[in-house]
Amino acid sequence: MDVDLKLLKEITRPSPSKIVLLVIDGLGGLPNPKTGKTELETANTPNLDGLATKGICGLADLISPGITPGSAPGHMALFGYDPVSFSVGRGVLEAIGIDFNLNPGDIAARGNFCTVDEGGLITDRRAGRIPTEKCTQLCQLLDGLLIDRVKVFVRSVREHRFIVVFRGGGLSPLVSDSDPQQVGISPKVITALNQDAEKMAGTANKFVAQAKVVLAKEHPANMVILRGFSEHPNFPTMSEIYKLKPAAIASYPMYWGLAKLVGMEILETGTSIEDEFLTLKENYNSFDFFFLHVKQSDEAGEDGDFDRKVRVIEQVDKALSGLTSLEPDVIVVSGDHSTPAVLGGHSWHPVPVLLYSKYCRRDKVMEFHEQACLTGGLGRLQAKQIMILAMANALKLTKFGA
Amino acid sequence: MDVDLKLLKEITRPSPSKIVLLVIDGLGGLPNPKTGKTELETANTPNLDGLATKGICGLADLISPGITPGSAPGHMALFGYDPVSFSVGRGVLEAIGIDFNLNPGDIAARGNFCTVDEGGLITDRRAGRIPTEKCTQLCQLLDGLLIDRVKVFVRSVREHRFIVVFRGGGLSPLVSDSDPQQVGISPKVITALNQDAEKMAGTANKFVAQAKVVLAKEHPANMVILRGFSEHPNFPTMSEIYKLKPAAIASYPMYWGLAKLVGMEILETGTSIEDEFLTLKENYNSFDFFFLHVKQSDEAGEDGDFDRKVRVIEQVDKALSGLTSLEPDVIVVSGDHSTPAVLGGHSWHPVPVLLYSKYCRRDKVMEFHEQACLTGGLGRLQAKQIMILAMANALKLTKFGA
Repeated sequence: MDVDLKLLKEITRPSPSKIVLLVIDGLGGLPNPKTGKTELETANTPNLDGLATKGICGLADLISPGITPGSAPGHMALFGYDPVSFSVGRGVLEAIGIDFNLNPGDIAARGNFCTVDEGGLITDRRAGRIPTEKCTQLCQLLDGLLIDRVKVFVRSVREHRFIVVFRGGGLSPLVSDSDPQQVGISPKVITALNQDAEKMAGTANKFVAQAKVVLAKEHPANMVILRGFSEHPNFPTMSEIYKLKPAAIASYPMYWGLAKLVGMEILETGTSIEDEFLTLKENYNSFDFFFLHVKQSDEAGEDGDFDRKVRVIEQVDKALSGLTSLEPDVIVVSGDHSTPAVLGGHSWHPVPVLLYSKYCRRDKVMEFHEQACLTGGLGRLQAKQIMILAMANALKLTKFGA
Repeated sequence: MDVDLKLLKEITRPSPSKIVLLVIDGLGGLPNPKTGKTELETANTPNLDGLATKGICGLADLISPGITPGSAPGHMALFGYDPVSFSVGRGVLEAIGIDFNLNPGDIAARGNFCTVDEGGLITDRRAGRIPTEKCTQLCQLLDGLLIDRVKVFVRSVREHRFIVVFRGGGLSPLVSDSDPQQVGISPKVITALNQDAEKMAGTANKFVAQAKVVLAKEHPANMVILRGFSEHPNFPTMSEIYKLKPAAIASYPMYWGLAKLVGMEILETGTSIEDEFLTLKENYNSFDFFFLHVKQSDEAGEDGDFDRKVRVIEQVDKALSGLTSLEPDVIVVSGDHSTPAVLGGHSWHPVPVLLYSKYCRRDKVMEFHEQACLTGGLGRLQAKQIMILAMANALKLTKFGA
């Protein structure tokens, strides 16, 4: 049985209580074959363990058992939105992240500058991670093209990453990617996934062809690959649904994009974990919901660096006192998916969840890791239910029904 | 929240990894009143326990809590198909099982030869389990009738079991059974469950009437009872959805029918458990998914024979090394329902599930039985999610969403 957002909206009420959602990206893991312990089990986390002892724990499926979530559905679920119904394209996410104003009808795609060899085969999907300044210069070369009466905007994001926005009538996002997600083959031809998308596919392919010409001498960034064609989904905001005044603290544009999609205000912050916790402290009085996002744990997992992921977790644990000392009414700690270092990528394993509030009905879990959370009072839950639990624990929900 | 097959299809990818699904029919049980232990708790199962120790366990509801599944929905769920949406009639199952080619519009029913007394009351629903040869002779007497321009095919299955297929225009499967599922009363009149099914009901009743005349002197097989009128449901295959090359190893036609419905290839095998595991070994290189079905456990449970069910489980445990020595990437052990000997029939109790893979995030369960599985890392899950988990653990799923 599912409590939908419409129902939720009817029972939410504003109150002075505050909720902090700490998302440790890629939090869940798998055992290190050498020690039999996961990243969380290995890390020394006295503060998280202390919070687990005072709180209630569980394991959450972001989408459903076995399904590996991308970052977008992972976060949508944590924000309380059904991650399958509220799906959002990569292009839109990145565009919103860098504050590009999307008009109705605009189609955005995420681009990579990449390296191709003389035969046109991709040798590096990230063009050696060119510096952001170089990316910006190259974007200027491609920006402002007019193709079939469609205006093309190109903006840099970071390093090799950029966005393209196509503006003109009659465009549909239902086209395939040109990014093949692997090296050793050519970028794919972009194809329409239904009849309405023929124009978009044609325009996008012409853009790619022109980019190839313009970039011919720009090795290693001598080609582009595009993915995630999408349009603004106009989701209901967290203010509308939860009657919250929400703010986001994150260090990478895509998470700003996700936060903006649900109406959060983006707080300026630095790139370190300590910076982010400081930003929380400085803005604590101005909002009643904070999404604090730690990216480094996922990066370490993606790089297959078990020890670095352990260190990031320990770093978060140290910084945690900057959060607990503010005494929020509700603290949630979880992840948007697991990223076990042994897999070197996102995985389907459920993520540990910790919820602390004065009214959480604490369980016997005294450590914050996968095995301990298995016996926790939250049980095995759907991630989209976490936000409702946070709201309940913040006494921001009225009862349902007579 | 439900990930449907359409979504699943988008994220499945072929890979060389292999999955073996071992279905121990009627696996779950209830305690023997004398000992307080279930069949699985009583059986000596060092190999299953070893696999549980290396794997992750849980308890699965085939349909939903409290609902007792028939064999068809139980298996559909284990194959990853929603057992309510993908329902399939008994007639079709048995017809497909014996390789009868159903045409579009054909209606199949499962039949029993049975014994009726002089007053027409059923005294034995299985006619003393007549030998298959006798069944085949009797079917020949009934085969080929033409009733109201409907051609009637009658084919033997095994012992007292046969199928009838009605071929002609305008037939609907929405008719009631004539099999009353008990003795001491007459076979029921077949009735239309909606207006479109009047013709089918009329034809079927005429067939039953003629069969009664033809069989009058064939005691103990002097009557027929029919059930499960149904037509071919044309389900998407496991190859379409999962991009697998699946094979089935089972010793009874109905399970071949179930396997064929989802596009599995049926491997020839013997009738013993050892034969089946040998067939797995011999065909291991030719497929990437194996459904291995053990029927004897359910039969023992249905007969209320606790000790025999224990022995069957121990026999499977002994044979298990023939499976584990092949080192499949993923091994799943479960049942299509519980059949507690103390109930002498299928039951609603959730079935133990064991999943082993290198990436399963093992739990602390070290024995494979109902109580131990209760604390397992898979928690309480829907059986239809098991196949998705198997696919994930075989690294055959890409991530969902940006």
